[in-house]
Amino acid sequence: MRDSIQRYYKTRQKTEHLCEPLEPEDFLPQASSFVSPPKWHLAHTSWFFEELILKPFLPEYRVFDERYSFLFNSYFNSLGDRIERANRGLISRPRVDEIFAYRHYIDHHMSIIFEKYYNQEIAELVRLGINHEQQHQELLITDLKYTFSFNPIYPKYSDQHYLPGANKSADWISIEEGVYEIGHKGEGFCYDNEKGRHRVFLENFEISEALVTYGEYIDFIDDGGYSNPRFWLDDGWHWNNQNGMKSPLYWKKIDNDWHHYTLSGLKKIDKNKICAHLSFYEAAAYAFWAECRLPTEFEWEVASPKLNWGEVWEWMNSAYLPYPNFEIAKGAAGEYNGKFMINTMVMRGSSRATAQNHSRNTYRNFFHPSSQWQFSGIRLAK
Amino acid sequence: MRDSIQRYYKTRQKTEHLCEPLEPEDFLPQASSFVSPPKWHLAHTSWFFEELILKPFLPEYRVFDERYSFLFNSYFNSLGDRIERANRGLISRPRVDEIFAYRHYIDHHMSIIFEKYYNQEIAELVRLGINHEQQHQELLITDLKYTFSFNPIYPKYSDQHYLPGANKSADWISIEEGVYEIGHKGEGFCYDNEKGRHRVFLENFEISEALVTYGEYIDFIDDGGYSNPRFWLDDGWHWNNQNGMKSPLYWKKIDNDWHHYTLSGLKKIDKNKICAHLSFYEAAAYAFWAECRLPTEFEWEVASPKLNWGEVWEWMNSAYLPYPNFEIAKGAAGEYNGKFMINTMVMRGSSRATAQNHSRNTYRNFFHPSSQWQFSGIRLAK
Amino acid sequence: MRDSIQRYYKTRQKTEHLCEPLEPEDFLPQASSFVSPPKWHLAHTSWFFEELILKPFLPEYRVFDERYSFLFNSYFNSLGDRIERANRGLISRPRVDEIFAYRHYIDHHMSIIFEKYYNQEIAELVRLGINHEQQHQELLITDLKYTFSFNPIYPKYSDQHYLPGANKSADWISIEEGVYEIGHKGEGFCYDNEKGRHRVFLENFEISEALVTYGEYIDFIDDGGYSNPRFWLDDGWHWNNQNGMKSPLYWKKIDNDWHHYTLSGLKKIDKNKICAHLSFYEAAAYAFWAECRLPTEFEWEVASPKLNWGEVWEWMNSAYLPYPNFEIAKGAAGEYNGKFMINTMVMRGSSRATAQNHSRNTYRNFFHPSSQWQFSGIRLAK
Amino acid sequence: MRDSIQRYYKTRQKTEHLCEPLEPEDFLPQASSFVSPPKWHLAHTSWFFEELILKPFLPEYRVFDERYSFLFNSYFNSLGDRIERANRGLISRPRVDEIFAYRHYIDHHMSIIFEKYYNQEIAELVRLGINHEQQHQELLITDLKYTFSFNPIYPKYSDQHYLPGANKSADWISIEEGVYEIGHKGEGFCYDNEKGRHRVFLENFEISEALVTYGEYIDFIDDGGYSNPRFWLDDGWHWNNQNGMKSPLYWKKIDNDWHHYTLSGLKKIDKNKICAHLSFYEAAAYAFWAECRLPTEFEWEVASPKLNWGEVWEWMNSAYLPYPNFEIAKGAAGEYNGKFMINTMVMRGSSRATAQNHSRNTYRNFFHPSSQWQFSGIRLAK
Repeated sequence: MRDSIQRYYKTRQKTEHLCEPLEPEDFLPQASSFVSPPKWHLAHTSWFFEELILKPFLPEYRVFDERYSFLFNSYFNSLGDRIERANRGLISRPRVDEIFAYRHYIDHHMSIIFEKYYNQEIAELVRLGINHEQQHQELLITDLKYTFSFNPIYPKYSDQHYLPGANKSADWISIEEGVYEIGHKGEGFCYDNEKGRHRVFLENFEISEALVTYGEYIDFIDDGGYSNPRFWLDDGWHWNNQNGMKSPLYWKKIDNDWHHYTLSGLKKIDKNKICAHLSFYEAAAYAFWAECRLPTEFEWEVASPKLNWGEVWEWMNSAYLPYPNFEIAKGAAGEYNGKFMINTMVMRGSSRATAQNHSRNTYRNFFHPSSQWQFSGIRLAK
Repeated sequence: MRDSIQRYYKTRQKTEHLCEPLEPEDFLPQASSFVSPPKWHLAHTSWFFEELILKPFLPEYRVFDERYSFLFNSYFNSLGDRIERANRGLISRPRVDEIFAYRHYIDHHMSIIFEKYYNQEIAELVRLGINHEQQHQELLITDLKYTFSFNPIYPKYSDQHYLPGANKSADWISIEEGVYEIGHKGEGFCYDNEKGRHRVFLENFEISEALVTYGEYIDFIDDGGYSNPRFWLDDGWHWNNQNGMKSPLYWKKIDNDWHHYTLSGLKKIDKNKICAHLSFYEAAAYAFWAECRLPTEFEWEVASPKLNWGEVWEWMNSAYLPYPNFEIAKGAAGEYNGKFMINTMVMRGSSRATAQNHSRNTYRNFFHPSSQWQFSGIRLAK
Repeated sequence: MRDSIQRYYKTRQKTEHLCEPLEPEDFLPQASSFVSPPKWHLAHTSWFFEELILKPFLPEYRVFDERYSFLFNSYFNSLGDRIERANRGLISRPRVDEIFAYRHYIDHHMSIIFEKYYNQEIAELVRLGINHEQQHQELLITDLKYTFSFNPIYPKYSDQHYLPGANKSADWISIEEGVYEIGHKGEGFCYDNEKGRHRVFLENFEISEALVTYGEYIDFIDDGGYSNPRFWLDDGWHWNNQNGMKSPLYWKKIDNDWHHYTLSGLKKIDKNKICAHLSFYEAAAYAFWAECRLPTEFEWEVASPKLNWGEVWEWMNSAYLPYPNFEIAKGAAGEYNGKFMINTMVMRGSSRATAQNHSRNTYRNFFHPSSQWQFSGIRLAK
Repeated sequence: MRDSIQRYYKTRQKTEHLCEPLEPEDFLPQASSFVSPPKWHLAHTSWFFEELILKPFLPEYRVFDERYSFLFNSYFNSLGDRIERANRGLISRPRVDEIFAYRHYIDHHMSIIFEKYYNQEIAELVRLGINHEQQHQELLITDLKYTFSFNPIYPKYSDQHYLPGANKSADWISIEEGVYEIGHKGEGFCYDNEKGRHRVFLENFEISEALVTYGEYIDFIDDGGYSNPRFWLDDGWHWNNQNGMKSPLYWKKIDNDWHHYTLSGLKKIDKNKICAHLSFYEAAAYAFWAECRLPTEFEWEVASPKLNWGEVWEWMNSAYLPYPNFEIAKGAAGEYNGKFMINTMVMRGSSRATAQNHSRNTYRNFFHPSSQWQFSGIRLAK
């Protein structure tokens, strides 16, 4: 339990550390309803501790500002109404310094919790809150990149661009048919959607150690990838046409060379590196073109000890659905994952924007198949 | 192979038989891009035989009208361009009698195929064409109901309303954990999406012999079913709110009694009968409210010999995705199923609008989770 | 008053005469919410007599079908609810023959009115009903053309294409500054929007006897008409871009020659003829390019005795707004014109699809500036 | 010409003065594409002087930042491409302090112009630039109010709320029929749309000295104003329904009392004060309900010397269209007004947010009839 306290403070500091390169103005804009401004991430992660721990467990607690409950709730219907998602970027006040004050107020009161009221139940909520904040650390990065990309002057966030590196192996790994166990095991933290360890039967399959590179993806483009309906799922083909796609998100051709916007500014694409920011539709089209397929999340989890992973989130050909015996948690935490189990596809692995110690091979990330703004790439199977 | 010929003629007659109750005017309207007018169904099912059999295999064949290739293609990119889906109802010409002439022209030339050119390859395409036409027979009924429902005078199609009957049993069936085989087996016809027989591991589960009735669904409504976000998947809750839902499709409250539009006109709802025309979102919300869940398609297929099914299509908590070793067929037939394996959920079973001999326990039907216009209902599992 | 009775029968017959070239299937489709199917026009014009004359003035009258009141009301809030405009094409029943029976039922009862109850008040409503039906005769033609144009086989309605002819003069007419009288004068029929004869002061202006021809409009296109924002009103430029305009409605380039869809089928454009089917945005852009302007409706009315007009409706640079002392008529007729006096621009003149004896130089037609489906063209002023 | 120089500096200071109550965060958000963030107003008004004066007339001028040309162009096609209007709020960089530096850089170089290059041509452009900046001063206030209104904590901008006061007279003024002169006269500054002084003939009319008050407008609401289609223009009725209107913009009922959001925070409505923030649709519906009408802009201009005006912008029943002999200015200035002469209605007068010395009785303001975010109210005529 002491570990958890240390980890609380480290996580909280890390979030603020991520904001250091930001100009004051960068805390506000929100380029789409599916991203949030940095200020909102800063506040919402504090709100989470306030709502789930301070309000129910700290008897002497007085809320920092009762209006924050409305302003910084994300999607928890059980915790009351909230501002419309698309309007998060319109809330200029409270100011950024007030949000930092709010964070420190929460931290101060959490320290009282740790000293006087800490118990197993709270420890588990703290662990959830830490992991929740780590998820928002990654979103802060990916959302910022998305919003920055609308600025024609290509703002630079830092020297770190969070893009994946190169492959270390190009081998194919063979896995034998059989009954395998899936889902989280042991004492460590996991989300409810990883629980309910259970068995699946897998037929023989092969999975690639390499992830698809920019160079390979450019081959797909050059072979008419975006103009041939044969490669695409039907919904993917409509998405492609409706958005007039000619390349992945953030790409721009300059003097016949592909460039892309990165958090270090506009850069020429390095063909040897692993390709990121693909939608599921693009991943599936690429796999069809390459005469392979995407793995299922069960295949991936079984093969994962044999793979190098952690460079990019990897799109699985698995819909995000409950495991057998999945149980919705009681209270607000029950809204964390279960209600999103429709119309989303699973990503496995993690990216370079994922918080340290946050990734594991049972982790189930999930996004709509059109989503491109995560650091998401392709691993092939057959 | 002779069976197939007989079945060809019976199927073709059946389609025309379904049109007998129609007034000439009923052949044209199209209430949404996801339904088609009867005239289009009549033509498209003939176009299918023309494109896949007559053009490639009947050397002396001359097309009935070369413009039909554009007018009556549904979604086969490999067979050329086509009219926009939402505009099918705008095509007043060719006239209905010309479409019937087209059908008979196709039948005549198919008879030459049967006499002079029939072989195994063609026999398989004929079988596919028959099954394709049977699918459109069901769509003709469900599409007609949808379009008719926009007419405030509640047109009557026939005395047959195609609605499900009552349950015969309310027992729960227990299935033991273990490895089970899934997918089509044997000689009979099936679609490519049922092939690739393979093994799955199932944990212990129970499944209800009864399907949810109108009375039970009204209990859900009366318990705040449409106004409590707790019951709903997140996308379902948005769908619910955006459409101002207060009841399923076709329902109307008159003097405090629920009525619904049926193909026999507006009728008072019989609470003992099995409930139809639910979206996946509604099915999932009901299951949550009932403290159960929907079965997976694998559970359903394994349990199916012990169930009475065939009253309504049953929503599965399974996304429509390829089986292991799923293979896209060569040529146009390859566009039949595979490209729809995203953003849709599986239905199993069949409804009273399904053509005879068309249903089987490996059949995988699939629709977007918001779809309500099929005769779709709920079977619970736990 | 006897004249009016004869004109009633002639007008009613004319409407049915216009339907003679139609196939039964042509009566139903509706390509947009701003057009109506022929069947609806047939019914609505009868409904107008039923609601405004038979119901209030024929004591023994029994409605043909009480549901028609809902089905065939256009936009008269004071006459009750009605079917949504975009759904008019979905109403396959009542059948077309039933609508013709409805028309004859109305005519029969109107004959009783004429024999037994005819008076000045009724005579004026009859006159309004006749003029109303004449408006729908023109709409029947223009709406049919619009819906037919979605059919890739280019249906032919008749040998008559309703397109304008050639100019008879290319002179410019000069009008002296001064106070002029505007608005309807005398005993003849006019709509309420033409009433309130009043004075306007006009500065000196010149107006062209010629209307813009296809050849001249092609010069505009060839000079970058659709790609140079300088020529366009701001809203026009957005309309142009959003619709990807490259030419007027119905045009199609085949082997480097401009063709257009006409009610006689697809035809090569005759450059000497007067150009039709232009939006106000296109008309204004053309005028800017030609270093002229469009006339105001007051200029047009004053100059009209000196002009050849009647080939096409002519877009005025006048918003459709009330004349001084405009009075909303009492009852349902009050909804005829007044409530549309916003966001529309005036057209003056008439087209070859306008009913005989229906045009006059005080007539104020009005459409949204994006409307193209009327036979609308350009006369320049300076 | 010296006056103009002084006025330049005063105007520039005034803009910055208006920003003093703002928190740094308030400079960025943009609640709709029709409003702009304060930062953008600050930059764009400087860009205007840079593009129209410094670039063409100051030989030694070096642009502050060449990217600003793209970032801060509003709608001048002749001055190049620009960022999409709806994305102005996404541009966090350049920072606010950089924008202030840009302003001072422009002012510094303008001072060189004034010293070394000042001439009549430049003086006129300076006058245009000053008036342009004054327009943006008012927009800065109204846009800020609109964006702030999305913040549920009701931010306060200042003690000044810019709302109109009470009426000083309730008399009706009669104007005699006759020919009147309209349009700008004399040496003072005016926009091109006021030029072309010309004659109009007006019939007798009466116009109210009083503007409609909150109390009167509440009477309209209480009499079913928003639920009775009879009062509304057709487009207004659709606007009303589509937006679920029950009151004007910014209103909120608390414990049965109407409150509204003001730039001083949420306040109870004072029924004696003049009503602001109405759309043209609401103004026209109110006038119909009150059995009056809105005046035309010509009537208003003729009556203006006898009226107290300047409390709110007043909706005219006149479409914004060119005066006879209206001439588009050469170059970029030609895009200032002329291209917006469609789909907008005229407002006359001025509001308390209008810059001092900026209002005159020939001023033609124009907005889409649905616009509510200006301080716009109602004066009746009959």
